[in-house]
Amino acid sequence: MTPSVFDPGLSVTAVAETALSEIDGDAGTFRVRGFPIAEVAEHATYEEVAWLLFEGRPPTEDELATFTTELSSARGLTTDAHDLIRAGAEGGVPAIDVLRMVLGAECLSTDGEDALRATRRVVALCPTVVAAYSRYRRGLEPVRPRDDLGHAANFLYMLSGVEPAESTVAGLETYLTTIAEHGLNASTFAARIVGSTGSDPLSAATAAVGALKGPRHGGLLERVYGMLDDLDAEADATTYVRERFEADGSVPGFGHAVYDTRDPRADLVERATARVVEQRASASFFDTARRLDDAAEAYLTAQAPARGMHVTVDYYAAVLLAELDVPPELFTAVFAVGRSAGWMAHYLEQLESETLLRPRTRYTGPERRSWVSRSDRCVAGGSNPPSSDALRGLSSLLAPLSEPDRLELLLILYESAEPRSYSSILARSSIDDKGRFNYHLRKLRRVYVTNTEAGYSLSDTGRKVVELLLDDEDLLAETLGEAPPR
Amino acid sequence: MTPSVFDPGLSVTAVAETALSEIDGDAGTFRVRGFPIAEVAEHATYEEVAWLLFEGRPPTEDELATFTTELSSARGLTTDAHDLIRAGAEGGVPAIDVLRMVLGAECLSTDGEDALRATRRVVALCPTVVAAYSRYRRGLEPVRPRDDLGHAANFLYMLSGVEPAESTVAGLETYLTTIAEHGLNASTFAARIVGSTGSDPLSAATAAVGALKGPRHGGLLERVYGMLDDLDAEADATTYVRERFEADGSVPGFGHAVYDTRDPRADLVERATARVVEQRASASFFDTARRLDDAAEAYLTAQAPARGMHVTVDYYAAVLLAELDVPPELFTAVFAVGRSAGWMAHYLEQLESETLLRPRTRYTGPERRSWVSRSDRCVAGGSNPPSSDALRGLSSLLAPLSEPDRLELLLILYESAEPRSYSSILARSSIDDKGRFNYHLRKLRRVYVTNTEAGYSLSDTGRKVVELLLDDEDLLAETLGEAPPR
Repeated sequence: MTPSVFDPGLSVTAVAETALSEIDGDAGTFRVRGFPIAEVAEHATYEEVAWLLFEGRPPTEDELATFTTELSSARGLTTDAHDLIRAGAEGGVPAIDVLRMVLGAECLSTDGEDALRATRRVVALCPTVVAAYSRYRRGLEPVRPRDDLGHAANFLYMLSGVEPAESTVAGLETYLTTIAEHGLNASTFAARIVGSTGSDPLSAATAAVGALKGPRHGGLLERVYGMLDDLDAEADATTYVRERFEADGSVPGFGHAVYDTRDPRADLVERATARVVEQRASASFFDTARRLDDAAEAYLTAQAPARGMHVTVDYYAAVLLAELDVPPELFTAVFAVGRSAGWMAHYLEQLESETLLRPRTRYTGPERRSWVSRSDRCVAGGSNPPSSDALRGLSSLLAPLSEPDRLELLLILYESAEPRSYSSILARSSIDDKGRFNYHLRKLRRVYVTNTEAGYSLSDTGRKVVELLLDDEDLLAETLGEAPPR
Repeated sequence: MTPSVFDPGLSVTAVAETALSEIDGDAGTFRVRGFPIAEVAEHATYEEVAWLLFEGRPPTEDELATFTTELSSARGLTTDAHDLIRAGAEGGVPAIDVLRMVLGAECLSTDGEDALRATRRVVALCPTVVAAYSRYRRGLEPVRPRDDLGHAANFLYMLSGVEPAESTVAGLETYLTTIAEHGLNASTFAARIVGSTGSDPLSAATAAVGALKGPRHGGLLERVYGMLDDLDAEADATTYVRERFEADGSVPGFGHAVYDTRDPRADLVERATARVVEQRASASFFDTARRLDDAAEAYLTAQAPARGMHVTVDYYAAVLLAELDVPPELFTAVFAVGRSAGWMAHYLEQLESETLLRPRTRYTGPERRSWVSRSDRCVAGGSNPPSSDALRGLSSLLAPLSEPDRLELLLILYESAEPRSYSSILARSSIDDKGRFNYHLRKLRRVYVTNTEAGYSLSDTGRKVVELLLDDEDLLAETLGEAPPR
């Protein structure tokens, strides 16, 4: 029962079997049910991809017609749902929270529905919720879905109220099919965990949307947009990338958790964007994005070759959605519209595997201790002498310093009166592995190190600790196993 | 990037560091922040445990007073929330779905709230939602929370409308404190995954509630109650346990994913139940439960010693809640009331670790294939000759049979005209490991094997496959690597 593997982030652990898709992060390939993503993106409608994910093979014409009708007839929202969306939109609640809320409240309308039908309804409903939200935000009445339009076309129609141009539909369709599925990203993983307990599709969908919301996941799209919006068309892209990288150690939209190469989906969405902007007089946003992509590719490959920081699908997704006139505040929710089919297919796969996901942890808290009655408790700085419990609390505060590499980072920061950039600390440090470096730096944050726009510096506590150590050469020598770098 | 560990269920992988609690499944011990759970259950109020989880040490009297006020002042629900609860209760939506829905809709009332305050509010709100639901279900108006009562006492007060007896409060308090935290069960894991993307506490709470809902997790409580309710007070408990085990391969409430011993929390809840029923004239439900526990312990230890099927906390939780007159339809939701503090503490711990949970999968789908245009697609039984894609679909249907152990199971079922019990198939099979046995049996279900109340039997397809194999001795010999057991 004792865990034999410690894998925070689960970067080397396969937690499930899946027949849905296959990522090869080294080769930079991605296949859905065996089909290269480029072929799927080029040929399939969203309905076809959703069917492919659910059923394991592309539909015949008859099957596709039936499925298309099933989806289009499930697009409508109840009055209660509209009330929630309006309240959220008027109250300034983000689109992605409203989507999570409305999917969660769909349990009011699931009378006798089986799990399979509910998964389809989740896919059918997402565009309607997002479009209605966007209309309310703009002070407009929602537009009723039209069942004679395909999934992508109807979504654009509900957003704008006018029938969309073919090139616009094609652009959105490519985006939605490209991102419909991508293995166990955090949101899909959340859906599978819910499925692992035998719970229902709406619970899985709300969990997935809630996970997607996070800045480290779906929230990335808005950050990419913000960066591109921020970058003056005249500015030098290389300078911009360098400054951004030195300040944050990363550039939004570059570097994927799984791919060491360019994300194969990025090129598909880039080409779809190119086709959309071909129809336009101006393409300045797209041109800026391509310039930044080129600059980032050159700079990041030279600067951090081992980290594989190449462009991701999120980068061009933000560009495409902007060119399709989708408001940036909807970006994460539109991602959800696309990913919903993958979430539901993974949910069903986990449900059918009947395997509960119940992981282990590595305990880092206090050793065994005994309960202290309320009147005997005290804390540092209180009027009573510190109890042994309070000392344990203190020692857990000091625990992050038990790692020599972290002390080294504190000493590097102590050397400099000014805040230091991420890359300058990294260069000065003896830690070779970027992952380890980030891990140690993170462990020092909040208590010992602060991070502002200007860079990293010691907190007051951090400074006091270093000074204490430097005052006591014996202690420092013992801790580091060598003489301190004075 | 290629996964090096395959661990479906994550039973040997530690996915995070935690300072919240420590389970030793071999020794049968559980400690919260270093304190043995027995000491916590005996001494602490729910507010104290929640603070302990959030802050890492028990609160001083002043801190506890402040925290108690923070919670009690956050108990109220908006009119919108009441409307949702009433709609759910009147529409027959389960309590746990309503709780998930209402927590999800709380994003309408989070104006400017920080994550820390939101975690407290989740803990404060759960009892109010569950009590209001229960009142609406019974056609009664909800009872407003009272801020002069503690967390447990106020919950009981809101349920019944009368101030609860001290012994009743003590019983519920012991339950809530005992189950406030328990490592990375599936619901808590869902909350951490949401935290890993940097998302918000309401998203984490809705994900957790959605996961808890599943029959393999929180849904267990109702199944235990159903079993005990089903068991006639006069019936022989050992016979009942044997029949149940032979039919299902398990008995609800016995056998924990983590403990190989009796669940240390079960005894705490059992004793709390004993104290509650001491005040009563009749204790027949509790007595029945103890009889069944004794019978199950004796039978399961003899029958399946290697599986460690001892009593779990869920078993006595169902008994205690029944003795506290909590309606069974609320059991899972009351579990959520207790676990909410653990969910939120884990959420915060993951959020602060800034580690994205992004696992890998093992791909089991079709090999690389090329997209086929719609008109060229066909399926088995259609008018066109089967395409190579259709054959691939067929071969994936046959894939579960590529494992000799599974063929053996089919042959065992083929031997018998009557459905066979789980244990008789297990006894006849050459598979020693129960986990592997369950896994293979599961892979055969739906297509090849059906499972009814009477036991397991071959489906029509399963029978045809076996007959095909038995007709072709060469094929069978080649497949099994030996002569068939005729």
